[in-house]
Amino acid sequence: MRLGTITIVGVGLIGGSIGLAVKQRRVAERVIGVGWRQPTLARARLLGAIDEGSVEIGPAVADADLVIFCTPVQVIATQILEAAPSYKEQALLTDAGSTKATITAAVDGRLPAAVHFVGSHPLAGSEKRGPEHADANLFQHRLTVVTPTPRSDPNAVGRVCRFWEALGARVKIMTPQQHDQALALTSHLPHLVAAALVGILPAELQELTATGFRDTTRIAAGDPGLWTGIFLHNRQALLEALTRISDQLDRFQTALTTGEEGALTQLLDQAKKVRDALGS
Amino acid sequence: MRLGTITIVGVGLIGGSIGLAVKQRRVAERVIGVGWRQPTLARARLLGAIDEGSVEIGPAVADADLVIFCTPVQVIATQILEAAPSYKEQALLTDAGSTKATITAAVDGRLPAAVHFVGSHPLAGSEKRGPEHADANLFQHRLTVVTPTPRSDPNAVGRVCRFWEALGARVKIMTPQQHDQALALTSHLPHLVAAALVGILPAELQELTATGFRDTTRIAAGDPGLWTGIFLHNRQALLEALTRISDQLDRFQTALTTGEEGALTQLLDQAKKVRDALGS
Repeated sequence: MRLGTITIVGVGLIGGSIGLAVKQRRVAERVIGVGWRQPTLARARLLGAIDEGSVEIGPAVADADLVIFCTPVQVIATQILEAAPSYKEQALLTDAGSTKATITAAVDGRLPAAVHFVGSHPLAGSEKRGPEHADANLFQHRLTVVTPTPRSDPNAVGRVCRFWEALGARVKIMTPQQHDQALALTSHLPHLVAAALVGILPAELQELTATGFRDTTRIAAGDPGLWTGIFLHNRQALLEALTRISDQLDRFQTALTTGEEGALTQLLDQAKKVRDALGS
Repeated sequence: MRLGTITIVGVGLIGGSIGLAVKQRRVAERVIGVGWRQPTLARARLLGAIDEGSVEIGPAVADADLVIFCTPVQVIATQILEAAPSYKEQALLTDAGSTKATITAAVDGRLPAAVHFVGSHPLAGSEKRGPEHADANLFQHRLTVVTPTPRSDPNAVGRVCRFWEALGARVKIMTPQQHDQALALTSHLPHLVAAALVGILPAELQELTATGFRDTTRIAAGDPGLWTGIFLHNRQALLEALTRISDQLDRFQTALTTGEEGALTQLLDQAKKVRDALGS
């Protein structure tokens, strides 16, 4: 895949990594980055993640064959729609947001006929922020979920898939709703639980934490604003996931209260089997 | 600190690491390892973690100035007491178990007058097992909690502290009860929660897990038998910790249900501040 101009809106860890990967793999001739602050754009340019920077979306998307929104989930749909007058014909739009149903529903049917949006979510990233943490290989061998709807243009879906594959990613197609229900369990709930574990840690016990606690709660260092947006977008599925974990914690509580060694070992054994299957 | 003979009962990850550290730092002239299976002892010897191996505790502790029990928590007290006839006068005993109150209570007052036990817990390790994962620097700059009781011989307490310091560890003195209450929150609850997160993951969603899920649940790969023992030893404190995390999850649930953005951000913000303070 070889494109003319790609515009990346939001040049943080994800947007910056897309820029680096696009440049390194020569997926586009020109990469334009959009950011709110000139220093961030300057850093992204210096790191080679973008060729040009702009603080305005409109002019920056006018020439773009592909526009990727890598901004917080709560602003993605608004940005996509506000820039609608500026897209060129046959422009392809996607995003890298951690939720898909709310964004897709907000955008669906509200774009010019010759402009196509297909949502994406690359399952990569970390608790860190900013283009200085960007990595050209962030998507390599990692899964990106692409979430078309029945209204999506099949050709546009194919092009979005090929774009992620050009960055080294494997692609999986899901509906936005399937994606959100799955990610509630694989990402949003673990984040919430990690934050809860840290939230009940008294200050005087901080020195008694070791690798286990640190691993388990690492994601709780993620940006609170970003994650509030994700949680609210995926409220219903996250509430269902919370019910499931509460039920599972109740099973542990019962086994502990009654002192049932066999029941405890069984719960831990089942977890170990699944965790071993995931790899390190 | 320089000892004659150290006997390590259990030459897995922790016991093996103690052996390697003792040898590398010349803390003892001779290191004897006790294990249930000859192949494990042979591996530990090959790795340089022990000088000699034995499948029987009695003969292996007869010459020991220091005996360290690095076996599962549910067998430590029994092993310490069963070997009582074999210890030499002024032998110092300690352990590396993740719980302290049950072990200490079982041993306290039941040893010959000239033999001293003081419990320890080095806050180091991983979900891995076996001497092949041993690391001579495992304790370096890490905290070891030493848990004397009012009956403990002050000289023995000092010697146990100096032993861990000789392996590079920092030492903190706590009562066995303080230790167990703290570790319920910093280690045992995180383990339980990680196992619960993995336990509710449907098989078809495994491919949708990324770094966040893997970090958060890494400890769930720990040995189910070992952790059942730890959970049952520290039942009361772990049940209290479970109540606390349930209350905290309820706060998230309320904020999600009512859609209170401010309340959600506040919960995540407080967690991020604490997690940032812990370092990577």
